[in-house]
Parts: sequence; structure tokens; C-alpha cells
Amino acid sequence: MHMPLTNQPNPTTPINPLGALTDLLQSDLLAVNALIMQRMQSEVELIPELAGHLIAAGGKRIRPLLTLASAALFDYKGTRQHKLAACVEFIHTATLLHDDVVDDSNQRRGRSSANALFGNEPAVLVGDFLFSRAFQLMTEDGSLEVLRILSGASAVIAEGEVLQLAATNDIETDEAHYRRVIAAKTAELFAAACEVGAVVAERSPAECAALRNYGMNLGMAFQIADDVLDYAAKRERLGKSLGDDFKEGKMTLPVIRAIGKASPAERKFWRRCLGEMEQSDADFHEACALLEKHKVLEESLDEAHRYAEQGIAALCAIEESPLRGHLEDLILFAIDRDY
Amino acid sequence: MHMPLTNQPNPTTPINPLGALTDLLQSDLLAVNALIMQRMQSEVELIPELAGHLIAAGGKRIRPLLTLASAALFDYKGTRQHKLAACVEFIHTATLLHDDVVDDSNQRRGRSSANALFGNEPAVLVGDFLFSRAFQLMTEDGSLEVLRILSGASAVIAEGEVLQLAATNDIETDEAHYRRVIAAKTAELFAAACEVGAVVAERSPAECAALRNYGMNLGMAFQIADDVLDYAAKRERLGKSLGDDFKEGKMTLPVIRAIGKASPAERKFWRRCLGEMEQSDADFHEACALLEKHKVLEESLDEAHRYAEQGIAALCAIEESPLRGHLEDLILFAIDRDY
Repeated sequence: MHMPLTNQPNPTTPINPLGALTDLLQSDLLAVNALIMQRMQSEVELIPELAGHLIAAGGKRIRPLLTLASAALFDYKGTRQHKLAACVEFIHTATLLHDDVVDDSNQRRGRSSANALFGNEPAVLVGDFLFSRAFQLMTEDGSLEVLRILSGASAVIAEGEVLQLAATNDIETDEAHYRRVIAAKTAELFAAACEVGAVVAERSPAECAALRNYGMNLGMAFQIADDVLDYAAKRERLGKSLGDDFKEGKMTLPVIRAIGKASPAERKFWRRCLGEMEQSDADFHEACALLEKHKVLEESLDEAHRYAEQGIAALCAIEESPLRGHLEDLILFAIDRDY
Repeated sequence: MHMPLTNQPNPTTPINPLGALTDLLQSDLLAVNALIMQRMQSEVELIPELAGHLIAAGGKRIRPLLTLASAALFDYKGTRQHKLAACVEFIHTATLLHDDVVDDSNQRRGRSSANALFGNEPAVLVGDFLFSRAFQLMTEDGSLEVLRILSGASAVIAEGEVLQLAATNDIETDEAHYRRVIAAKTAELFAAACEVGAVVAERSPAECAALRNYGMNLGMAFQIADDVLDYAAKRERLGKSLGDDFKEGKMTLPVIRAIGKASPAERKFWRRCLGEMEQSDADFHEACALLEKHKVLEESLDEAHRYAEQGIAALCAIEESPLRGHLEDLILFAIDRDY
């Protein structure tokens, strides 16, 4: 297993490449934040109020940052990437709002979720508004290629969410299904966010594909790490609750692996907890103990590292630069993060 | 008050102009239906299953029909309107799916609603999918003007829904607020559907605006009639339940008018039923009796007829034709229908 931060392949990795990217692209990011605040406005007051609750809570802005970084990687000098980065964040925010309704979540980004605070109804509708707003922004930009990429990504995300829903509580779910789910619900938007930056910079199809490929692998690594963190105590720092996936009966990689190695008694445990959703408070600790016993968290992180390697390899098609270095580091950081 | 069907301004009005339009545009409509069935497909089986439940239930296809009629009105000979009519229906279907989740409805088009049958979660997500698919279709069409119209309409619809939600249970809601809500949540998509047909036929801005104006007024008349029908027994024929708006505490025109004329005791009744949502079975009949007493259903239909007149006037900018006649009749039919 790769050790967090202490044993990284690249010895020059800074502690936090996300911070480095944020610093490097600070003026772009400020422009994007200003656009986000401006374009989430509506005369219907509840809309900016609800959207603002989630957007102002911050989040890492990792997806819009990818669009900015990708455009900057190719020395693009215009400002189109600002509007498109805002689109990407709006699409992401819309999916978060709908996700929290679907999962009946009470927490998001360390505070009450929008649906918990305002009710499910406006959370659904404000999600729709942000989604529509994203398409208005893209239309203003006027690139049909960007519209193709992001409308396609949006459809794939919805497919991924439905696919995940269908597998919830199904302890027969296999790894191929899991990969299909996370590729669609998570990695697709990372891929699109990166690709759009290259498209804006009018790069060759091969370079656009390289960025897309990088984003896809980053997204896969990011989601696997996320699914591991749901069973790892450190997460509680960022206000996400530990064990959410377990409580919802989500079939994530660690659990799928653990079920694959389960004794008949263990299998019965998983079926009861995740299949039949009969859980007591002690069950989550038992689940963590089983993941530990079968070393599946380590295995899952190894899997994430394989995606990281592919993502880093994809960037070889792009000229070397400090920015490229940060993107390489980012994919490792996405795995070794503790939030 | 205008009498249904017996006392119409235009003596040549056929019994059902919707039927006449459907006949006239039958081959277009078949092409649109084929596109709808084809493009709602997904490898994620639950998506066509759930979407198909609602789409196959039929509905009147009135919005896509408007796009087809508008293109035909200008003798447009291409096929672009088919894809765009499918977009319009996808956007409408997505809003229905989300509406039913928001309203917690159990019935739609005479059968169980998708959320009642499949659960709220997939209904939200399949709505997102159809919405994304609509933007994919528009992108394939490639007209930024169409994208502008329909992404704008989508944002406005979401605003209207939120606005309606904010007024629910608020018995101080006034008519101006009501008009703002129905213009946004209903009439905007009628307007956009009509406008898109004219845009596809590459007509002048004035002609595009005339069609948009017609659609807007049709939508206003249609929604007011819908809100009247919720208190009129005939509706039960089409499987919509009577009194849904009352049960949900929705502030529609008849109720707003009745509250405006209410005695103190009646006002107390409305406050209890719609404001505080304390309703017994007998209350709906009492509500109907009050609407009858104050003649507000008739007044509301008169209001709808004023929109009809404006819609018909808007069509004066367009050359006379049998098709134009059907569109004129349609707006009267939308008011005098019994479903």
C-alpha cells in the first residue's frame, strides 16, 4: 500500500497541490467566484438564499479549478474559461442538491444540508435552476463543442446516479458495476471540466483527449478515496459524517471487496446491514473491523493509485511545466487527503 | 362569462382543434414520438422504464405540437422542428417528474405518478437525465438562438416553481404574484415552444415575437383554466384528482379572488384550510360553495378569455391560413376543455 504523504513517488510533491493551484490561479478563481455569485442571483429570493447556503460554504472548487488549470496549462490568454468554470460548478452544485434529497442527507460541507434546512422541494427546484443557468452560461459562451461536452456529462452523471441507486442494498454488486457508477457519477464531470479548458484553448484533439483522460482518472481516484474515507475516522474533521455510505447501504469498493472475501457469517452480517438495512450502532464498528481484517481499505487505495498512474501518464502528452507538475501532484493528493 | 362551446366568438370552431392540429401534423408528430422513444433510451434500464411510464401514458403533447404547428405555419420544409419538439417535451416531462416529487403527488395522467411507483429518488434523477438529454438534442441541432430560448425558459420555469412554493399556504398572495407564477411555471414553455418553431423557419424577429406572444397568452389561459378545473367536477374523467390544489394549499386565481371577497368568517375558513392546512373532508365542498357564491370561477374564466383575445390578436401579424385558424381555436379550446 502507498503510505500517505511520507512515501510518495514524486519527492517534490508539496504538502497541498490544491493550495498551490489555488495560489497560481488566484485571479482566475476570483473571477469565477464573482461570476458564480452574480449568476446564481434571481428575483426569486429563495433561490440565491438556498444556492448561496451551499456555494458560500465553500467546498474545494476543485472542478472549476480543473477547467482553469487546463486552460492555463496551454497558456490560454482569454477569459472564456471563467464562465465555463462557473458552469461546471453550477452543474456540480445542482447534482449535490439533488443528491442530498435522494440520499436524505442532513449534512454537507460541515453544515446542515440545503434540503435539511429549506426542505426537499426547494432543493430540487433550485438544483433545476442552477442546472438551467449553467446551460444559459454555456450558450452565452457560444461553443457547441463545450455544450456537447457538458450536456453529455450531465446526462452521464444522471445515469450514474440512477445506476448507483439501483445497486444500493444489493450485496451482489460487483466491481465492474461500481466502476461504471463512479465513472459516470463522479469522474465524468472531472473529465469534462479538464477537457473544456483544453477546448477553450483550441488545442488538438489529442491534447483535449489527454486532458479528458487525466480528469477521468483523477475522478476515479478521487471517488475511490472518498469511499475509503467514509470508513476512516479522519474524515470527521471536515464535517462530513463518518459511515454515511454504510448507513445508506451503498455498495462501495471496500465493501464489495470485503464481501468477496467474507466468511459465511460475515456475508450474513453484510446482508443484514447493507442488504436489509437492519443496523445497530455497533454494526459500523464491526464493519470497519472487517474492512481492516481483509485489508480492503489498503487494496482500494492501491486501486486509486493505479488510476493516479494512468492519469499522470496521460499528462505526458502535454509539455512539461510547473502547472503540469501540480496536476500530477493533485491526483496523488486526492488519494492521500484526509477530508 | 363565456359559455363553453355553445357561445363561441368564432362559429367555425371545430369541437376539438387539438384533434385537428394532431391530424394535420400527424406525420410530424409520429416523427417526434419516434425521437422521444429513441432518445429517452439509456443503458441504465430504470431510466427508459420510468420515463416511459410517464411518456407512454400519453398526455396531449400540446407543447411539442406547438413547435410543429409554428414551423408549419411558416411553411418550413425541413425536419429540425422534430428534434426541438422532442426537447420541449423532454423539458416538460422533467418538470412533471420534479413537480410530482415536490407536490408529493400520487396521480398523473390517470395512472400512478412515477414517484409513487418508483420512489422520489429515481424520479428526481430521471428528470435530470431528460433535462440533460434535451440539451444534448438542442446541441445536436446547433442553433444558439434555440439554446438561448430553451435554456432561458428552463431557468424561468424553475424560478416559477420556487415562487409558487413560496406562496403556498400564504393566503395574502395577490393576483400579481399568481400571474407571475403561472407566467413562469407554465406560459414560458408554451411561449418558447411556439417561438422555436418560428426561429427554425428563420422568420423575422417580429414574427418570432408574435408566436412567442401567442404562446405566452395560450399558456396563461391554459393554466387559469387548469386552476378552475381543479374545483370543477368534470375533471375526474381524465384521472386527475379533483381538489389537489386545495389539498396542497395552492393559491390559485379562484381562491385569491374568493379571499378578496370573503366575509370575516369565510376568511377564517380559508386561513384554516389553506394557510394552516387543517382540512376535513367536508371543507372542499365548502370551498367549492364559496367559489360558487362569489362567482369567481366564472370571473377566472373571463380572465382566461382576456388572455385568449390577446393571443389571437398576436396571430394577426401572421398571414391567414387554416393552421392559423386552428391555433386561434386552440386557445379557446384550452379554456373550455373539460380535462
